[in-house]
This record gives sequence, structure tokens and C-alpha cells, in this order.
Amino acid sequence: MNIILFEKDELADSTILLSDHRAKHIVKVLQSLEGDTLRVGMLDGKTGEATVVSVKRKYPFVVELYVNLNDQPIPPPAIDLLLALPRPIMLKRILSQVTALGVEAIYLLNANRVEKSFWEAGILEEKEYRPHLIHGLEQAVDTRLPHIQIHRRFRPFAEDVLPELASQYTKLLLAHPSATENLSGCLAGSNGRILYAVGPEGGWVDFEVAKLLSAGMQPFSMGNRILKVDTAVVAIHSRICQEMEN
Amino acid sequence: MNIILFEKDELADSTILLSDHRAKHIVKVLQSLEGDTLRVGMLDGKTGEATVVSVKRKYPFVVELYVNLNDQPIPPPAIDLLLALPRPIMLKRILSQVTALGVEAIYLLNANRVEKSFWEAGILEEKEYRPHLIHGLEQAVDTRLPHIQIHRRFRPFAEDVLPELASQYTKLLLAHPSATENLSGCLAGSNGRILYAVGPEGGWVDFEVAKLLSAGMQPFSMGNRILKVDTAVVAIHSRICQEMEN
Repeated sequence: MNIILFEKDELADSTILLSDHRAKHIVKVLQSLEGDTLRVGMLDGKTGEATVVSVKRKYPFVVELYVNLNDQPIPPPAIDLLLALPRPIMLKRILSQVTALGVEAIYLLNANRVEKSFWEAGILEEKEYRPHLIHGLEQAVDTRLPHIQIHRRFRPFAEDVLPELASQYTKLLLAHPSATENLSGCLAGSNGRILYAVGPEGGWVDFEVAKLLSAGMQPFSMGNRILKVDTAVVAIHSRICQEMEN
Repeated sequence: MNIILFEKDELADSTILLSDHRAKHIVKVLQSLEGDTLRVGMLDGKTGEATVVSVKRKYPFVVELYVNLNDQPIPPPAIDLLLALPRPIMLKRILSQVTALGVEAIYLLNANRVEKSFWEAGILEEKEYRPHLIHGLEQAVDTRLPHIQIHRRFRPFAEDVLPELASQYTKLLLAHPSATENLSGCLAGSNGRILYAVGPEGGWVDFEVAKLLSAGMQPFSMGNRILKVDTAVVAIHSRICQEMEN
């Protein structure tokens, strides 16, 4: 936890009172004392410093902070993710990791090779997935929660939603093993928001590839090595960041 | 499992007999029948095709394969990893992921912020870590096991081992948040083997950074966002691959 994040409604008279895992972190890991300053941030708001007003060091831990928010959080890279719904345990990790890397929107989509049971997972409810997003923000020192959109039907998404979304992006990129071009080739000279798509374990079926391409997506290859979805997401996200920096 | 891998001593008269998780995979996931062909490979050897000679479809599963090895595996990228020993559960995932991405050597090193208990983990024994490497190879369709070297003392490694290793590499790169140069800058114009180093959660201490730099490592930054070790390894590895491809 590289920043202590809090909800807007936790703040009253520039003060927040913590009694959950954040209080435990301040007591046990940071070992903060009265008068110390901590990096804090309001979810979807500014970051700044907080002064420790009081600490109860015995369980149950309680920490009172006086908060001073003056700084904008680091802007995330202009990258969004379209992801065929993975296994819940993998989704949790991907949500944290991709939030840490910086993302504004994550579209979770059905596909032929998505197991039906994945759609019954609790993690698809906001109260379940939000902590994983916050975990990524706490890691990366950011406050901006990514927007999660859930699309349970492939075809309406590919035919109606994606073509509408396309106008927000300069590039729509589809990771596809048989593509001939690599990411650098696809991104050469482009400047603006990028959406990249990663399919399910086993890949998209031909029908899905055809639909995504006709919605304007451009295929790219990551080379001969087949990657698991969680490795692929971090690897591709990171490569796109690098291309955008150069 | 995108390739069925086997040990050299499992092969007799071009035939292998499987009765473990590989047999289960062939029966339950691939649903192979007699006469079907499968992609196979010998660990640290060639890849090729195997014909299913016989299958016992009921538990306990048994599969007999007739093997024909003719192809060299895809060469891995010329990248090695120097990693401060992470938490065992994270190490398992990193070993699989970085093997899938392609790596020849992984040096596991002590550091001030490595928890002492991590050195007692069973995963540091070859029989424990090898399955995680094989898992990465099965994913990426490779046969070449990375070499793992374990260095329990930082200072002898940094002072004696690393300067000797340095001659094998064109670049020794140290992920360090306060560096001014990024990876593209560090790698511009270089052509050859790369070693990159990732520290423990919380980072290297100043003494360690000084030692690594005086052994010839060059610091680079991944930007303002602080990443967990497992995310950082995949992100950096992937960025170096991309620079080497370009």
C-alpha cells in the first residue's frame, strides 16, 4: 500500500477516522506515530498528505488523520482493455495488475470459449470487484478508479457497442496469433487513445475474429510464444505504454 | 498445455507411456483418439509430433504415444533475470510466467528487504520449482528449461559473481524508480544478451543499488507508477523483448 485511499464520504472537517485494514497497515507496517505524515488520496479525487492526529496501537487499531489534498493524481496512460471474461481468480489478479499499470475502462465480454460458469461469479458485482481495483490504485499511487463495463452477449457488443466506441480511439488492437504485424508496426505514428483486446484461453473463434475485425479492430501478433491470458494482458499493456512513451 | 513435454528417460523405442496429469489432459481436454497426432517435445531437446497409439479413457488414464522429433524449439529471447527472492507464492507464478515469455537464466538473490523466511521455502529445491518451469514451457510451446541459480548472500554475488557474469551481456539493467532514463533509452543501439534486475517489494536499499551500479548495472525507470514485483517482471521482460524485436 503506497498510498492510503479513502472514499469521499469518509472525509469530515478535513479528518478521516480509519479502523479497518488501512489502520492496521498504518500501525503494523508503516509504524506511524502521532505527527507523522502519510501519502493519502481520495478515490476519484486529489492526492496529498495527511498528518497522524491519533493512533490506537492495540487491536482493534484506530487511526485519525488530518488530510490536506492539493495534488492531481498521475494521469493513467490512454489505454483501455477489452477482455473475454477469464476465470474469476485470474480476473481478480488482472483487475489489480491492469489498474496498477493504468487503465481507464475495462470491458468484460462473453466469447465462445468463456466457460458459462464464469458468468455466475460474485466478482462481477461492483462490491466484489471494487476492492481489487482499489488494490491496484494503492499499489500505483493513483486515485482514479477504472470504469468496468460488463457485456454478457458477444454479438450485440461487436455489432452495436464496439462500432460506437470506436470513435473514441485512434487504434483498436486485437491480439491474434496469426497476425503478421507486431505492436510497434500497428502503433507507428498513432497518437491518441488505444483499445486492445485479449481473448479467452484457447482464443477467439473465427466468427468472433471476423466480427471484431469488421468493427474496425486491427490484428497484431506477440510472437510465437503462446501466453496465458494474465501474462498476455500485462505484457501487451506494458508494450503499448512503451510505444506511447517513445 | 499447448505441447506435451516429456523427460529424455521416458522415451524408449520412440514410444512414451503417460499415466499422470499429461494422460488426463490428453483424455479429458484434448479428447484425443487412437491415430490422432499431438504436438510433443523432449525437455531440453527437440519438438515434433506424436501419434496416439492407445488410450485408456477411464481413470486411471493411460496414453501411449509414438514420437517423432524433428524440430528445434523456438529460441528464447536473449534475456536473463536477476530477481531479489520474492514470497514463495509469487515466485511460483513468476517462474512460470517468465519461462513462458522466454528466459535462459534466472538468478535468485538475497537483499535487505527479502524476508528471511522466504529462504526456508521448499520452492527453492529443484524438484519443487521444476514443475513451474515446465508449466511455462508447456504454455509457450518450448522445451528449454531455464537455469536457476540461487545466491543466498548479496555481497559476494554483487562483488564477485556479477562482475564475472557481466562479460556475457551487452547490457545489465537495474529497474530503479529514481532513474532518469527509460528502457528504450538504455537499449538504443544495443544488440546482444540482456540481464535485467528487479528488487524486492519496497526496493533495494542504497547500499545494494551502489553495489549493483558499481558492478556495471545501468538504472532505468518504468515511470511514476509503482508496480508489484510480479507485474514489474512481466512488464519489463515484455518491454525488453519489444525493444529487441524493433
